[in-house]
Amino acid sequence: MTNLLHVDSSPGPGGISVSRRLSARYAAAWRECHGDAGYRYRDLAADPIPLVTSAYVTLGTRVERSGIVPRDKIGELTESAAEEREWALTGPLVEEVLAADVLLIGTPMYNFTVPATLKAWIDRITFPGVFTDPGTGESLLAATRVVIVAARGGGYGPHSPRAGFDFQEPYLRRYFENLGVAEFTFIHADLTRAADIPRLHGLRDLAAASLAAATEQVVQTAGETNTQNGCPAGSA
Amino acid sequence: MTNLLHVDSSPGPGGISVSRRLSARYAAAWRECHGDAGYRYRDLAADPIPLVTSAYVTLGTRVERSGIVPRDKIGELTESAAEEREWALTGPLVEEVLAADVLLIGTPMYNFTVPATLKAWIDRITFPGVFTDPGTGESLLAATRVVIVAARGGGYGPHSPRAGFDFQEPYLRRYFENLGVAEFTFIHADLTRAADIPRLHGLRDLAAASLAAATEQVVQTAGETNTQNGCPAGSA
Repeated sequence: MTNLLHVDSSPGPGGISVSRRLSARYAAAWRECHGDAGYRYRDLAADPIPLVTSAYVTLGTRVERSGIVPRDKIGELTESAAEEREWALTGPLVEEVLAADVLLIGTPMYNFTVPATLKAWIDRITFPGVFTDPGTGESLLAATRVVIVAARGGGYGPHSPRAGFDFQEPYLRRYFENLGVAEFTFIHADLTRAADIPRLHGLRDLAAASLAAATEQVVQTAGETNTQNGCPAGSA
Repeated sequence: MTNLLHVDSSPGPGGISVSRRLSARYAAAWRECHGDAGYRYRDLAADPIPLVTSAYVTLGTRVERSGIVPRDKIGELTESAAEEREWALTGPLVEEVLAADVLLIGTPMYNFTVPATLKAWIDRITFPGVFTDPGTGESLLAATRVVIVAARGGGYGPHSPRAGFDFQEPYLRRYFENLGVAEFTFIHADLTRAADIPRLHGLRDLAAASLAAATEQVVQTAGETNTQNGCPAGSA
């Protein structure tokens, strides 16, 4: 069985959020091929991940001092109820990521980078050593395919006034590269606020074209993943 | 009177967090000169900022469609109890920033950028138009001095293995630049995890040197700000 973990992070209203519409399109194509058994959905806006606390940091530091600790031994290193609680919140989220063959993340750009909803998830799952094989030191995410579908209110191309302000794609790319992810796809719809922001009104055609291109890329990427996993070509 | 808004964002345990120690050093020098009347402290880990909700986004979009709305008229644009609540949470945080002559932020680097605690504050205060003068279109933060004191577990210099992974300094610089902040100072202590992470043990001397340099820069910057504001030279 292949497993898809579908994470949405946009606080934007349902039906309007572009990143949610794009990630839903991918998930629908995937489920058409694979059914529902391996599908898991997590909504970081509806069910926010609690911010990490000092007990998380204290436990993480203790674990890190010991090198790479197997995940099933981390609980034994807790020294307080607060630390136990932190690990109880963290462990299942880590397992969910490790169980995924495809990790699909829908994210808006908020203030030039990922929203706090998504950063709270990142800060919690990135517990010291949990994505490293304690035996070999290799990444446990080397075979995980990460697909990011992103919405950005403005345009961040090389010649736009906001060139150099994109801390969303380069950031996520580096973050997952550091975890050992080899297959990383970033799909983005730009100028999604063109209809709302008066000074961007002239860019509405470009926004529509960007959304159409992103949608096509979502369908194509889902189709590729499906074909790799034994579904009929064109099943997206 | 000069006002200092001192924001800490590290979830790290008190007394150990390097960014908290550095920001406290700055604040102490400032208070020695200015007293306590203009001093305001906000701890984003002890009192986390609630993540923005879809009501925030809906209200923000409505406001944005109208151009720059004066802050005291935004409440009139709310259309639900949820939107009123969002603005009631947001407005006072915005006023707090606007009242500051110096905005001092202590922040660790978590997963190559700011922690979710700080991003939650950024996402909330950056409500459409609130830092722009509705009359002139100019930034209301043009005269605000922003001082960031940052701790980073590793090293991110141009020739380090982690060059290109720093999404903390460039990010905060661009974010505040976009708000119209002209005076931006970034002070960082690197390798703060050298004592905890076995593979970084050999870098402990470098870590100590980095912390000493950062502390000196904090004292110097506080002294400059104090002198600019009429305190005796060397009062830091």
